[in-house]
Amino acid sequence: MSDILTQRKEDYSQWYNDIVLKSGLADYSAVRGCMVIKPHGYALWENMRDVLDKMFKETGHQNAYFPLFVPKSLFEAEEKNAEGFAKECAVVTHYRLKTDPNNKGKLIVDPEAKLEEELVVRPTSEAIIWNTYKNWIQSYRDLPLLINQWANVVRWEMRTRLFLRTAEFLWQEGHTAHATKEEAIAETKQMLEVYATFAEEYMAMPVIRGVKTANERFAGAEDTYCIEALMQDGKALQAGTSHFLGQNFAKAFDVMYLDKNNRKEYVWATSWGVSTRLIGALVMAHSDDSGLVLPPKLAPLQVVIVPIYKGEDSKPPINAKIAELIKELKARGIRVKMDNDDSTRPGWKFAEYELKGVPVRVAIGARDLANNVAEVARRDTKEKVSLSLDNLAETIDAMLADIQANMYQRALQFREENTRRVDTWDEFVRVLDEQPGFVSAHWDGTSETEEKIKELAKATIRCIPLDNPKEEGKCILTGNPSHERVLFARAY
Amino acid sequence: MSDILTQRKEDYSQWYNDIVLKSGLADYSAVRGCMVIKPHGYALWENMRDVLDKMFKETGHQNAYFPLFVPKSLFEAEEKNAEGFAKECAVVTHYRLKTDPNNKGKLIVDPEAKLEEELVVRPTSEAIIWNTYKNWIQSYRDLPLLINQWANVVRWEMRTRLFLRTAEFLWQEGHTAHATKEEAIAETKQMLEVYATFAEEYMAMPVIRGVKTANERFAGAEDTYCIEALMQDGKALQAGTSHFLGQNFAKAFDVMYLDKNNRKEYVWATSWGVSTRLIGALVMAHSDDSGLVLPPKLAPLQVVIVPIYKGEDSKPPINAKIAELIKELKARGIRVKMDNDDSTRPGWKFAEYELKGVPVRVAIGARDLANNVAEVARRDTKEKVSLSLDNLAETIDAMLADIQANMYQRALQFREENTRRVDTWDEFVRVLDEQPGFVSAHWDGTSETEEKIKELAKATIRCIPLDNPKEEGKCILTGNPSHERVLFARAY
Repeated sequence: MSDILTQRKEDYSQWYNDIVLKSGLADYSAVRGCMVIKPHGYALWENMRDVLDKMFKETGHQNAYFPLFVPKSLFEAEEKNAEGFAKECAVVTHYRLKTDPNNKGKLIVDPEAKLEEELVVRPTSEAIIWNTYKNWIQSYRDLPLLINQWANVVRWEMRTRLFLRTAEFLWQEGHTAHATKEEAIAETKQMLEVYATFAEEYMAMPVIRGVKTANERFAGAEDTYCIEALMQDGKALQAGTSHFLGQNFAKAFDVMYLDKNNRKEYVWATSWGVSTRLIGALVMAHSDDSGLVLPPKLAPLQVVIVPIYKGEDSKPPINAKIAELIKELKARGIRVKMDNDDSTRPGWKFAEYELKGVPVRVAIGARDLANNVAEVARRDTKEKVSLSLDNLAETIDAMLADIQANMYQRALQFREENTRRVDTWDEFVRVLDEQPGFVSAHWDGTSETEEKIKELAKATIRCIPLDNPKEEGKCILTGNPSHERVLFARAY
Repeated sequence: MSDILTQRKEDYSQWYNDIVLKSGLADYSAVRGCMVIKPHGYALWENMRDVLDKMFKETGHQNAYFPLFVPKSLFEAEEKNAEGFAKECAVVTHYRLKTDPNNKGKLIVDPEAKLEEELVVRPTSEAIIWNTYKNWIQSYRDLPLLINQWANVVRWEMRTRLFLRTAEFLWQEGHTAHATKEEAIAETKQMLEVYATFAEEYMAMPVIRGVKTANERFAGAEDTYCIEALMQDGKALQAGTSHFLGQNFAKAFDVMYLDKNNRKEYVWATSWGVSTRLIGALVMAHSDDSGLVLPPKLAPLQVVIVPIYKGEDSKPPINAKIAELIKELKARGIRVKMDNDDSTRPGWKFAEYELKGVPVRVAIGARDLANNVAEVARRDTKEKVSLSLDNLAETIDAMLADIQANMYQRALQFREENTRRVDTWDEFVRVLDEQPGFVSAHWDGTSETEEKIKELAKATIRCIPLDNPKEEGKCILTGNPSHERVLFARAY
């Protein structure tokens, strides 16, 4: 199957597109910049959603659903947020089509059905949600308000990439309201930690927890926390963000509460989100030249069993053994299926399930059965071993855990090998060009320098890592004094 | 709490709005015709979605996700479908806002960012999906294609009602492709039966399975199957539809497959959907003047336990007993919580949980504990009984099953009492005015007569029930011969 994929070394970007399309994760659509998420991709998203949803509920959040449309007057109420998203808004201006009088069978926008006020298709929902919270919050008893929404959003991006940057994408957005600044900051950090835990424990993708510089903040936030991951080509990818919004939205939408002393105070806010972009991150963090490599905890199918028949007589005993194995695997909560489709050959199936990233493949033929063994292949290392049929379900269960751990370790090692401390401008530029990865370097703390570095080296400050050690040094560009290193990279 | 709700007899429509708003199911929004689904409403929708999703997967369907936007040229390809929805389409015409030069801090639509082709916000997804299926289907091996999507859709309705008819709503839409007409019809009927089973077994809402007349068909369908339920005010509500689409979309989008004999044939299609409208149906089918009555199988919270403390000393033994009971209930998979918030009184809590429709309420005080009993109230009948604490979890489990069955029986009896056979026009009109419900009557089979009846009596043919007995008779309006009765009602 590897001949159908562009190889990573040849063209990393094309390799990525090939994997997404050929493994059945997504497809292009007739709408500019919008993708179709195919069943395999959607099943992966469902697994991610279910785990995250459970984590949100365990931390006290409830789900709700707010309108897709934001009236323009609400959209523009929080000025910085509006300014940040105005350039990429899809706008609904009419509510009816009519028959084209000059062109039978065709429709035109009915000019008489123009909306009095245009509606913005939500690029993010702070405005519509805070306009609603105004009615829900009166007293300290109504706080904290801890709500999450699973929804589609639209950002009219000029350059799109499947999953990584699409005009429409699926995401969750948490929007919380708190009585105090401290509580809101604690919530922001808590949700960042939820994302980091999800990335590391489920996606097997190590992340740096950090805070963005002022330049890279979410429009309307006081502080943006983020998790940053490193892809196999040495580029960074922002995998989730959690924003401390201060009282900006409370003031824009006049959301106040009566505190215990009967004083009116503005509410403090947070918002936080991850999106289908995580699927792109998952692909780029782990996959290889044979296709997807999925972490067992999220793989839609964890184990596939392929019978190797030799004549009709061989079928009943092999099928009986497989049925038994499937029963035992399912009893352990493992997602498993047998593929005995006789219109394709075993070799084709092996390649197909490799392409789709199924963590463990089991093949059982007549000779295996006679020897009381099965051939078991693991997707992460592509090792094949002959294993006893005795306790095979238990062995496979342990193997899945080992794959999950190994994928994380491998990605962590890759990141460590590709994070470099650099102290001069020349080295900075050379490393970015020749050894792409995270670069830890001193920066003088000004937006001007940050922009200059971006312009000259095409690298951005991904974050100031949390719990960053203080260290005196000199800015790589200006030589001005710096008190800590920050993390640079070229990024998706 | 009942004093905060309008009573059903007084104003059924206002009672419905009161319940939806005050029980925390939904709220109005700043966007015309769009609602906010609040946490209690969304939790209910999640339970409905999870059950349906499992049923879809068990019948071989996979989920996927298609774009929100439909380019106008695709939208108009299937002419009848386009004509049916053209009048209620939200249309995106621009992709950018810009600063208003005449009004600081305000934004205007950027006239330079006009789309070359307008995008329709999907009112339903046949067009965008069949345009995609064209690329996915080449051979009989690609069939059947069994896909479902959970999504938001927009239909610009002029008169809206919370849940029942909103401009934006959440739904699922199944879109399947088949090699033969027979298979497609079988799929259409199978999914109708899935909906009927869901309505009856989970929503405790009996439904009539039937087929729509030509007038009431989905735009672009050859046949529309439906389930129809009866609300407490005697009006019918269409709760789900399953469409046999023939080859209309295959022809509009040129979707052909090579059959086993290497001949090119058009594909056969179905689509089927239910929406958040079901929440409206659930409210109107079961609720009473004290609030929501939720069927246990779907209730977000099935049992609430309210401790009745008398002084600090009484707390530890009561709390210990309740903790034990909660553990036992959870072990049975029952959704339970204790409410020991000391800022509200037990009486207030009782009314609040009645309003929210929690099926079983348990109260335990010091005297109860001494007598080894608890006071258990069931929401459907409002009966209160004193029950032994021994095996209480088991008793409550059985009570939940009984509530589920009783709610169904009560709704079924109501429907049977309010379904009347009528043979003359005068009686038809009198019954509709004085004893609203389903009316089973003869009709001559023509669209003209159907429209005339609708105009004169404000009643529509809800469906021709499946397995309808043949019976000779005369049309109630024209006196022309008829061979079976059909079901009329005034409807939501």
